[in-house]
Amino acid sequence: MARVSQEHLDARRRQIIDGAARCFARDGFHGTSMQGVLKEVGLSAGAVYRYFSGKEDLIAAIADEAFTSIRLAFQEAADATPPPTPDVLLGRVLRGLFSGEVCGLDGRQFAALIVQVWSETLRNERLAATFDDGFSTMRVVWADVVEGYRKTGVMRADVPADHVARAMMAAAQGFFAQMALFGDAEPEVLENGLRGLMSMDLQKIG
Amino acid sequence: MARVSQEHLDARRRQIIDGAARCFARDGFHGTSMQGVLKEVGLSAGAVYRYFSGKEDLIAAIADEAFTSIRLAFQEAADATPPPTPDVLLGRVLRGLFSGEVCGLDGRQFAALIVQVWSETLRNERLAATFDDGFSTMRVVWADVVEGYRKTGVMRADVPADHVARAMMAAAQGFFAQMALFGDAEPEVLENGLRGLMSMDLQKIG
Repeated sequence: MARVSQEHLDARRRQIIDGAARCFARDGFHGTSMQGVLKEVGLSAGAVYRYFSGKEDLIAAIADEAFTSIRLAFQEAADATPPPTPDVLLGRVLRGLFSGEVCGLDGRQFAALIVQVWSETLRNERLAATFDDGFSTMRVVWADVVEGYRKTGVMRADVPADHVARAMMAAAQGFFAQMALFGDAEPEVLENGLRGLMSMDLQKIG
Repeated sequence: MARVSQEHLDARRRQIIDGAARCFARDGFHGTSMQGVLKEVGLSAGAVYRYFSGKEDLIAAIADEAFTSIRLAFQEAADATPPPTPDVLLGRVLRGLFSGEVCGLDGRQFAALIVQVWSETLRNERLAATFDDGFSTMRVVWADVVEGYRKTGVMRADVPADHVARAMMAAAQGFFAQMALFGDAEPEVLENGLRGLMSMDLQKIG
């Protein structure tokens, strides 16, 4: 057997993952066969099975990459000092994730993949474990950012930070759903919308 | 053939829809067979096919019911005078939807069904049309509520009302995802979280 470089192996693995991600985003996990993946990436079964034992393995690798990207996108956006306000923060996160950084997918493909992952997670214990782990970590990171808002006095302190973190995550998750379903979910829409919500003056309500 | 009353027909139809909704919420659309639905509802094929021509037909009926419920839940909550603030509004909507009003599903089952519907909508033109229609209507209704906030001076006016409406819908949609995936998404969490976001004072940020 010819010797192949690590770069070659990595590039091949990347090629397979990216192709499978396009299939999953387009046809769903149920609607994608390994045959379909082979066709999409233009490789033989032998070449693909050298890297992945099957569809389950590919799903796990891709879900893992998606979670990691979401976590890193948020972490990077949150690491700025002072932390950006929620509208700016979520706008940056969405722009990063919609720009092709996850498996080379464009925004709508990425969002469709995430919706597929949710659906699959409801019935796949391996994915559910990955998801639980990723979500718990993110909750802590986002709650830290919320604590930062409080320390600087820009947010009321009588609401659990975890609840604010979950509301922010919900806004991002719901926006993934809108992007997947309609494709016209520009990050600016969520930025503006949050800015509107944040401007509400509850003391003016009688 | 024995004559059957309209009430009997309606009750039978309800029984089939509710049973199918439990199957779909648990096993997804792909993972549910008509055989599975027959077993869940305890009826013969003849009895079920009298009402629905097949799985596609059941999916359409259930998705339609889910959309209608979401629209009505929001409409009812929004009809109060003055309109409740977004935290209260979304809390009421979620409480209604999680309380068994849709096909007799509990909160987590309902949320799981919605995630399945999203996933299915990406590849099902009939569902996509229903969804587009429902979403467009809801956007208009929610934007009206946002206009109400403005008229009473509690929200800034330099952000498109549609964007605020979409951010509110995103928060609700993302919360469905959290409820489906983790099951501990009490409406109070989103209420508190939104209250935190709404309390932010952007003028204090230097």
